[in-house]
Amino acid sequence: MGEIPVVRNILEANDRIAEELKQFFKEKNILCLNLMSSPGSGKTSLLEKTLADLKGEFKMAVIEGDLQTDNDARRVAATGAQAVQINTEGGCHLNSSQVKEALSLIDLEGLDILFVENVGNLVCPAEFNVGEDHKITLLTVTEGDDKPEKYPLMFHISSVMILNKIDLLPYVDFDLEKAQQHARKLNADIALFPLSCRTREGLENWYDWLRKAREEKK
Amino acid sequence: MGEIPVVRNILEANDRIAEELKQFFKEKNILCLNLMSSPGSGKTSLLEKTLADLKGEFKMAVIEGDLQTDNDARRVAATGAQAVQINTEGGCHLNSSQVKEALSLIDLEGLDILFVENVGNLVCPAEFNVGEDHKITLLTVTEGDDKPEKYPLMFHISSVMILNKIDLLPYVDFDLEKAQQHARKLNADIALFPLSCRTREGLENWYDWLRKAREEKK
Repeated sequence: MGEIPVVRNILEANDRIAEELKQFFKEKNILCLNLMSSPGSGKTSLLEKTLADLKGEFKMAVIEGDLQTDNDARRVAATGAQAVQINTEGGCHLNSSQVKEALSLIDLEGLDILFVENVGNLVCPAEFNVGEDHKITLLTVTEGDDKPEKYPLMFHISSVMILNKIDLLPYVDFDLEKAQQHARKLNADIALFPLSCRTREGLENWYDWLRKAREEKK
Repeated sequence: MGEIPVVRNILEANDRIAEELKQFFKEKNILCLNLMSSPGSGKTSLLEKTLADLKGEFKMAVIEGDLQTDNDARRVAATGAQAVQINTEGGCHLNSSQVKEALSLIDLEGLDILFVENVGNLVCPAEFNVGEDHKITLLTVTEGDDKPEKYPLMFHISSVMILNKIDLLPYVDFDLEKAQQHARKLNADIALFPLSCRTREGLENWYDWLRKAREEKK
């Protein structure tokens, strides 16, 4: 069906614009982080906490990607941060040209960190760079400890795996050690942060990583 | 980039084979159900229960779709049912030609129900028919009650929404009524089954639907 060369062309076109964006973020000294996960793993909740807790330290903005609705942009904007919503109208991932277009709606002056919250999908967003410095993948303990093994690319390419909703560990069968071992097998350098946005347990470890990543960008 | 006509060609080619399969299932009098959800929403757990509990009533088989591993096929085969694993090698959904190929590995003689467990993804599988009589979508209460609104196509085209893991309701913010209302707004005829594979609460309602769907196929 000629599918493979077409897919390759789409990925190459995406990578070209992603490379432009990467250069742009470097010149502007903006740390760009691409947040990915299954639907409902807590990307927006993590952003709400992070934007509220670190607003005194960093100037932050968010590009939100969703099939439909601007619910998530409204949730993060409630923290006072700039937020732009991209509706993909059914599209299963964000691409670099959508992110480039959204950038024109953000005041980039003095911005320290730009978060891109991708469409909830543990598969397709892994293939589309958007100029980010790091990919951050969330996995919740309710999804099962086999997910790094079953969705390997996402964990292979991520700098960070956040294990969210650890407050639910007593009520589910989830072997934290097993999930972390699988992730490390796919990516020896991956940083692992078990945490709960609800109870705040573990959030500080994520914030410390963020401070270090911001520092290293300079 | 010429992306849209190519996507249309791929969908049309998929629909042609799906239509063939639909005709084939009709001739063979096999009820075919396409199970879809986010990763970790309990598709395989629901199949394990269903295959074990109804093995005296129906002859059932499963086609499992995953990016990698044959873990799920081994789990369902442990119930005694026939199971075939398709590894999509990164592909984000099953398509009809993969299902057609897998069919050649199944003994179809006297088969009552064929389950197709799709790749864990609440977006892409919605666009690819595989010859099924019904689409069944699972949503867990840990994913959030906003998911039908945010991923509308999947719920719009499904005959059934299973709300899984209701044993976790006391520990999460999830408004069961709100999720069900959103789903009904997208699809007035959708059948709604809150249940827990872990505690078995609500499983009988799903089994009754299955018996009725099997009966109506005749």
